[in-house]
Amino acid sequence: MSQFWSPLVHSLTPYVPGEQPKVSNLTKLNTNENPYPPSPKVLAEINAQTGDALRLYPDPNSDILKQTVAAYYQLEQAQVFVGNGSDEVLAHAFQALLKQEKPLLFPDITYSFYPVYCGLYQMEYETIPLTDSFEIDVQDYHQNSGGIIFPNPNAPTGRLLALEAIETLLQQHPNKVVLVDEAYIDFGGDFNHQSAVTLVNQYPNLLVVQTLSKSRSLAGIRVGFALGHPDLIEALERVKDSFNSYPLDRLAIYGAKTAFEDEAYFQKTCQKIIQTREQLANTLQTLGFDIVPSAANFIFASHPDYPAEKLVQQLREQAIIVRYFNKPRIDQYLRITIGTEAENTQLCQALTNILK
Amino acid sequence: MSQFWSPLVHSLTPYVPGEQPKVSNLTKLNTNENPYPPSPKVLAEINAQTGDALRLYPDPNSDILKQTVAAYYQLEQAQVFVGNGSDEVLAHAFQALLKQEKPLLFPDITYSFYPVYCGLYQMEYETIPLTDSFEIDVQDYHQNSGGIIFPNPNAPTGRLLALEAIETLLQQHPNKVVLVDEAYIDFGGDFNHQSAVTLVNQYPNLLVVQTLSKSRSLAGIRVGFALGHPDLIEALERVKDSFNSYPLDRLAIYGAKTAFEDEAYFQKTCQKIIQTREQLANTLQTLGFDIVPSAANFIFASHPDYPAEKLVQQLREQAIIVRYFNKPRIDQYLRITIGTEAENTQLCQALTNILK
Repeated sequence: MSQFWSPLVHSLTPYVPGEQPKVSNLTKLNTNENPYPPSPKVLAEINAQTGDALRLYPDPNSDILKQTVAAYYQLEQAQVFVGNGSDEVLAHAFQALLKQEKPLLFPDITYSFYPVYCGLYQMEYETIPLTDSFEIDVQDYHQNSGGIIFPNPNAPTGRLLALEAIETLLQQHPNKVVLVDEAYIDFGGDFNHQSAVTLVNQYPNLLVVQTLSKSRSLAGIRVGFALGHPDLIEALERVKDSFNSYPLDRLAIYGAKTAFEDEAYFQKTCQKIIQTREQLANTLQTLGFDIVPSAANFIFASHPDYPAEKLVQQLREQAIIVRYFNKPRIDQYLRITIGTEAENTQLCQALTNILK
Repeated sequence: MSQFWSPLVHSLTPYVPGEQPKVSNLTKLNTNENPYPPSPKVLAEINAQTGDALRLYPDPNSDILKQTVAAYYQLEQAQVFVGNGSDEVLAHAFQALLKQEKPLLFPDITYSFYPVYCGLYQMEYETIPLTDSFEIDVQDYHQNSGGIIFPNPNAPTGRLLALEAIETLLQQHPNKVVLVDEAYIDFGGDFNHQSAVTLVNQYPNLLVVQTLSKSRSLAGIRVGFALGHPDLIEALERVKDSFNSYPLDRLAIYGAKTAFEDEAYFQKTCQKIIQTREQLANTLQTLGFDIVPSAANFIFASHPDYPAEKLVQQLREQAIIVRYFNKPRIDQYLRITIGTEAENTQLCQALTNILK
């Protein structure tokens, strides 16, 4: 509190990200990072770009990256926006598109940054309860609103909403933006069958947001992007160009571009994580956990006999960190990032000991 | 224009950065980049950090960088904020500190992003004319206001406001934030004598913003920072944590940290640029230009007999780009970035031919 703060600052309740521990001896299953390193081609390209040209500003439009992303998804460059991580892309989307006279709608259990953005941009919102099985029912979104946002797969539940349901939502709300936050979509299976990207050319009210932090192992270089009708993209560009001309640095632009060019590595690591997720789900069920069906790189799990908060503490004592949300409806759940097979085994061994 | 835009987006007039040409055969004296490459130690450190750890999120607080900056300026870590370029730091400062009920004050000739931020955050502002010699007179800032911001040295004029005048301003306005935007301060001479950083511990209403894009040759990795009372820094952190948890990537954090550790390289390149600036100023005066005294890495120059807009075009035809602002009071000026000695010579040769 200070006399110098703007009135807004007093009212903010900032987001609290998952812990990034300063010690390296922890098994880190708390922030949904990829357990596999970035593609070697990405690292080679970043090294190749680390030279005298860093004295120069990057391309403020990141054209070379937008062209690559557009080609990858068979879209035009004008349908692509890029930002400093998908959190920045989402922030701009809240200010540029979702801030309307009527309230924004999102699920009651969802990415906890959404209400924070609403606080920052002083937007009204209403939450729509997930079903008892943590599913989004698009028929619950009929009330008067200025826009709709949800992650797919949802976070922290991991549940996937079928593409048909998303299409129904887009058709039922043609005059408002529907933002599908696909941070985890690449773990849902073949993106051609699951991602709403395939609907972008048909629905001018659809904005799809993705990130390179999860499926492309690049949380450390901060790149996210949005795909949608050029009118929606232009709104994001106008806000971006009123905030920061150069949000992506040179190394991020070239590293991200190369990540989209190494499809084999991307497919291999995603498939590996999906396999490990299914193995972990089976083992956790054997240990008595209830598992929410996951299409993400994490599992949302609850044990009927052990308080989740205590399990988190006991895992921490064994040098394993997972994420816990002390919030209504989900305070008996752990969100466990899918690690390597070895980390998976270590986690199951620790849980076996704790639950004994 | 689109039905999906938020009302705000329709009202924005985005900032237009200087051109970043896609071809490499131009002599680029238009965006105040450093003509010398980053410190070799910085490049080595970025290469060393380009590894498997890029799969992990960076430290959301950039502690290691804040500690380094704090130690460099003999401040506490709680007096340091870091962001994705000083443009992002400034944006957060507008929203967190400068947005008040009363209008913000800044010079009529100044960094043209300031009115853009005011548009983004829907803030009132009033401009205070510079004197006829393009100087800030602090006695012109007595009107009722919610805050004051100016660059020092000012952009695009290059003029330095003496530290005594800044201290007077801070004393005259103890209840509002005075933001000194020191993007170019390291070219003003010894920072211990010129930078308002030396006043941070005395004045809780002072925020100093700097960048690594100019004097530390790192425009390509996007790092800026603010120094001030912990209360001011906390306001920035609250906005940052409501916008994007991880604004600085891993490579930027470590590259920036190393830049502060190679003092010899920093001093050597700054001194070289200052020397070249003085040589260029002399030559331009010989060619008949009027020169605004510069403490920055650029020169603001006007020729009494040749329209500036035409000179810019003619230089472009000779593959040299400089910056031109088609705005009242300064539309007869060129802003020329200080290049290498060879670029300096090339520019003077071209101007000699044009002015013949």
